[in-house]
Amino acid sequence: MEPQNVKGFRDLRPREAYRKNEIISTIRKVYESYGFLPLETPGLEYLDILLGEYGEENTKQIFRFKSPEEQQIALRFDLTVPLARVVAQYNDLPKPFKRYQVGSVWRADKPDPGRFREFTQFDVDVVGASSQLAEAEVISAVVKSLREIRVGEFVVNVNSRKILNAVVDYSGISPERAKDVFRILDKLNKIGMENVELELTKGRYDTSGDFIPGLGLDDTNVRKIKEYLALPKGERKKVLTEIRELLGEQSCIDLINLDELLDAIGLGSDIVAFNPTIARGLDYYTGPVFEVNLKDKPQFGSVAGGGRYDNLVKRFTDAELPAVGFSIGVDRLLAALDTQVGRQEAGVDVVITIMEQDRLSDYLKLANELRNVGIKTDLYLGSEKGLRKQMQYADKMNAKFAVIIGSNEFEKGTVTIKDLKAGESASKDAAQREDWLKKSREVQKEIPRNDLVRQLKDLL
Amino acid sequence: MEPQNVKGFRDLRPREAYRKNEIISTIRKVYESYGFLPLETPGLEYLDILLGEYGEENTKQIFRFKSPEEQQIALRFDLTVPLARVVAQYNDLPKPFKRYQVGSVWRADKPDPGRFREFTQFDVDVVGASSQLAEAEVISAVVKSLREIRVGEFVVNVNSRKILNAVVDYSGISPERAKDVFRILDKLNKIGMENVELELTKGRYDTSGDFIPGLGLDDTNVRKIKEYLALPKGERKKVLTEIRELLGEQSCIDLINLDELLDAIGLGSDIVAFNPTIARGLDYYTGPVFEVNLKDKPQFGSVAGGGRYDNLVKRFTDAELPAVGFSIGVDRLLAALDTQVGRQEAGVDVVITIMEQDRLSDYLKLANELRNVGIKTDLYLGSEKGLRKQMQYADKMNAKFAVIIGSNEFEKGTVTIKDLKAGESASKDAAQREDWLKKSREVQKEIPRNDLVRQLKDLL
Repeated sequence: MEPQNVKGFRDLRPREAYRKNEIISTIRKVYESYGFLPLETPGLEYLDILLGEYGEENTKQIFRFKSPEEQQIALRFDLTVPLARVVAQYNDLPKPFKRYQVGSVWRADKPDPGRFREFTQFDVDVVGASSQLAEAEVISAVVKSLREIRVGEFVVNVNSRKILNAVVDYSGISPERAKDVFRILDKLNKIGMENVELELTKGRYDTSGDFIPGLGLDDTNVRKIKEYLALPKGERKKVLTEIRELLGEQSCIDLINLDELLDAIGLGSDIVAFNPTIARGLDYYTGPVFEVNLKDKPQFGSVAGGGRYDNLVKRFTDAELPAVGFSIGVDRLLAALDTQVGRQEAGVDVVITIMEQDRLSDYLKLANELRNVGIKTDLYLGSEKGLRKQMQYADKMNAKFAVIIGSNEFEKGTVTIKDLKAGESASKDAAQREDWLKKSREVQKEIPRNDLVRQLKDLL
Repeated sequence: MEPQNVKGFRDLRPREAYRKNEIISTIRKVYESYGFLPLETPGLEYLDILLGEYGEENTKQIFRFKSPEEQQIALRFDLTVPLARVVAQYNDLPKPFKRYQVGSVWRADKPDPGRFREFTQFDVDVVGASSQLAEAEVISAVVKSLREIRVGEFVVNVNSRKILNAVVDYSGISPERAKDVFRILDKLNKIGMENVELELTKGRYDTSGDFIPGLGLDDTNVRKIKEYLALPKGERKKVLTEIRELLGEQSCIDLINLDELLDAIGLGSDIVAFNPTIARGLDYYTGPVFEVNLKDKPQFGSVAGGGRYDNLVKRFTDAELPAVGFSIGVDRLLAALDTQVGRQEAGVDVVITIMEQDRLSDYLKLANELRNVGIKTDLYLGSEKGLRKQMQYADKMNAKFAVIIGSNEFEKGTVTIKDLKAGESASKDAAQREDWLKKSREVQKEIPRNDLVRQLKDLL
C-alpha cells in the first residue's frame, strides 16, 4: 500500500511542527495576558449550523457527510460560526465573552501550491461588545502576538463594511449585490484591477480556463468604485478626511473612534493603516474589517484577517450579541518564518550513544539524570553498534552534544563529550562536515563522570 | 436554528480548555526533555491507509466520506497508523524516529455518558527500535508526565502479547483466534469474568439487549485461560516466576529485560506492575502492552495505553521497523483532574472596570501597561455602565482583583483596588458572596495611580 497524504493535505515534520508549537504558545500567552479565555469546539458540526445564510457559492467548499444517526454533518470551515453557536448555547458564559481558540479548519477548495485543505487558525474574539474598544483590543493583541513571534515588519490594514456599503450606494448599485461586490473586491491584491473590473462587469476566464460569470455592473458603477479605490491608503487621518468627503462622516464613524483609541495605545499608521481597498471575503462582516500583510513578504498574502460581525449570533438566538474577531493563519505565518534564519530549531541538547550493550541500565540512568536537571536528552535506541552511525543519528536529531561512554570510559569513571555544533562553521556540506567531525580532536574532551552534569549545564 | 452539538460531540468551555492546555503543555515539555520530536498529520487519511488489516468489526467506527476527487477518505481513529504511514513515506527522518503527537481522533462509536466521538490523544512512539530500552523510555516518559500533571496515584500495568499468545497455545486454541480472544480479555475490567466467559463460549446479551455472538470455545479452553488469569498481579519478579513456570521463559523474555531496565531507573512494582489480565484491544500489538489506571479513581478506566507493534509499518514498506508507543487519553485525564480541588483555574489577574465613558483611551492605556509587566488584564468591553454588573462580570472572569477608576479617582490621580478573592473564605454561596463584596470595605483600597503596578505585582 502506497504511503501518501490525501490530495490537498500535508504532514508537518518535526522542524515545522516544532515551530508551529512555538507560534501557538507565543500567541496563547499574549491572548491570555489580554484576558481572553480558551475554548474548544469539535471538528464536526451539523451542516445547517455551518451553512446558515452562508452563500451557496461557498457551500461547495465544505467537507460534508452523514453522522451514524444519518444526519447531515460537516467539518468546520472556520472557528467563528462554532463560536456563535457556543455563545447562543450556554447562558452562563461571561458577557462580553472574550475567547481564543486554535484549531484545524477544513475547506474542500482546489488545492494550490502552499494552499491546503486543512489549516490551522488562531482566533481571538469578543462577543457582546459594540464599542470600538473591542476592535482596539483585538488589534492590539494581534499586533503584540506578531511582534513576539518576530515575523518581521507587518501592517494591519483596516477598512469598514459601512464604508463599503456607502460605496455600493454611491456607485448606484443595489444593496442586495453588496456582498457579491465585496467578494470580488477582496480578490484585488490577488488578481489585479483589470480582472476585478471584468468580474464586476462581463466576467472572465481564469487561469485554468474556467469562466467566472460577471456581476453585470455598468460603466458608471465601475467608474465610481474605481474612484473610491483610488483614494489614498495608509495615514489614518488623511484617509478619514478623504472618505468623509466622498461618502460622508456616518460611513466612517467606527474608524474615527478606532483611530483615537489606537493613538492612545501608541499604534500609529505605520503599523495599523486605513486602506480603502480591503474588503474581506466572508459574508458575515458588518463593520470594521482587518487584514495583516507582511511588508517584505507580500507573497504570503494576508497572515491574519478579521472584523466586526454584529449579526452572526442572531442565526441561533434573539439576544443582541455584536461581535468582533481576528484570526491568525498559523500556516501562512509558518511559511513566512521558514524563510528566516537563526531561529531555534527542533532538536535535543544531548544524544547519549550506546557503546556497551551490557551496560544499558547505566546509559538509561544517565539519561534520566540529565533530563532531571532540564537537559533535553536523547538516548540512542537503535540497533547500530558503531559510533559513526550513531553520530549520524545525533546529527539528524540536531543534537548540540554527544556523550560517549565506551568500555575505556566505564573503567576510568569518565565520559567523553563531543561538541556537534562546533563543526557548523567549518562546513555546511554534510559529507565534509562528517569528515571534519570524525577527524576533529579539539571538539571533544574526556571528563570525570561525576562532573558531566555541571559541565553540560555550563556548555548549554 | 437551535444551537447544539452533533450527537456524541462536546465543547470544552474555558475551565476545561484551560486545564487541557495545562495537561498538554506539561506532557509536551516532558516528552521534549526525553528527546522526542513533534509531528503533525492531517485529520483525514485515505480510507485504505487507515483500514489495512484492521478488523471488519472496527471499520464501522470510522467516519468515512468522499474527497472532492471522489476518493474514499476518513477521519483518523488513532495517531499510530498515520505515524506508520509517515515513517514509510519519508526516508530522511532520523532512525529510530522518536516522535510525539497530540491531536483529535474520531470514532463513530455509540456515545455513552463520558464517552465522546472526538477525543484527544497524546502519543509518544519510537519507530525502528527492537530493544526493550524503547519500552523503558516510553514508560518512563509517561510516568514522569503523569507525575508532573499531579493526577494522583496510578499504576502502569504491563503484560505481553507474547505471553498471551503462549496462553492461547497452552489453552488449546488455534492461533488465528488469538486476536478475538484478546479483544474479549481486554473487556475484563469493564464487563467482569462472567461476561468474558460467555463471550468466549456461547455469547451473551449486552445491557441494551443486543446479542454478542460467542467465540465457541470449549470448557477446557476456558478453564486454562482462567487458570492463567488467576496468576498473581503486581510484584514483577513474582509474576515472572509464575509465568515462567506456566508458559515457559520464552514467552516473557521481553518482560524480563524490561524489568531489569525499570529497576535501574527506580521504577518499582508499585508504579509499574506486571499484570496477566491486561490485553489491550487493538490488533496491531506484538509484544509488551501497557495501560495506566488511577489508583483511587477506577471509574475513569485506563487513562493511557500502548505497547509494541513490530509489524504495523510493514503495511506500507518492506523496511523492518519495529515500534513501540504509549498514548495518553487527555479527555480521561481531564475528567479525573476535574474531581480535584485547589488547581489553577482559567481566569485573569485583574479586571479594569469602565466608569467614565469619555476616558476609554485612559483605561486602554492602563490595561496595556499592566499586560506589559506580565499581569493578565481584562478590560470590561460591555455596555453595562454600573459597577455592580461589571463586578459580576469580574467574578465570572475569575478575576483576583478589580481596578476601579471613577471621576473621583481620575481627579485625585488615584485608583481603587478591590480584592475579589478575599470574600471566598467568607462564603461559597454566590448571592451571599456578592452581598459580602458589596458591603465589604476592608477588601478595597485607594492608592496613587502611579503606585498601581508595584502594588499589584506585590499582591499577585
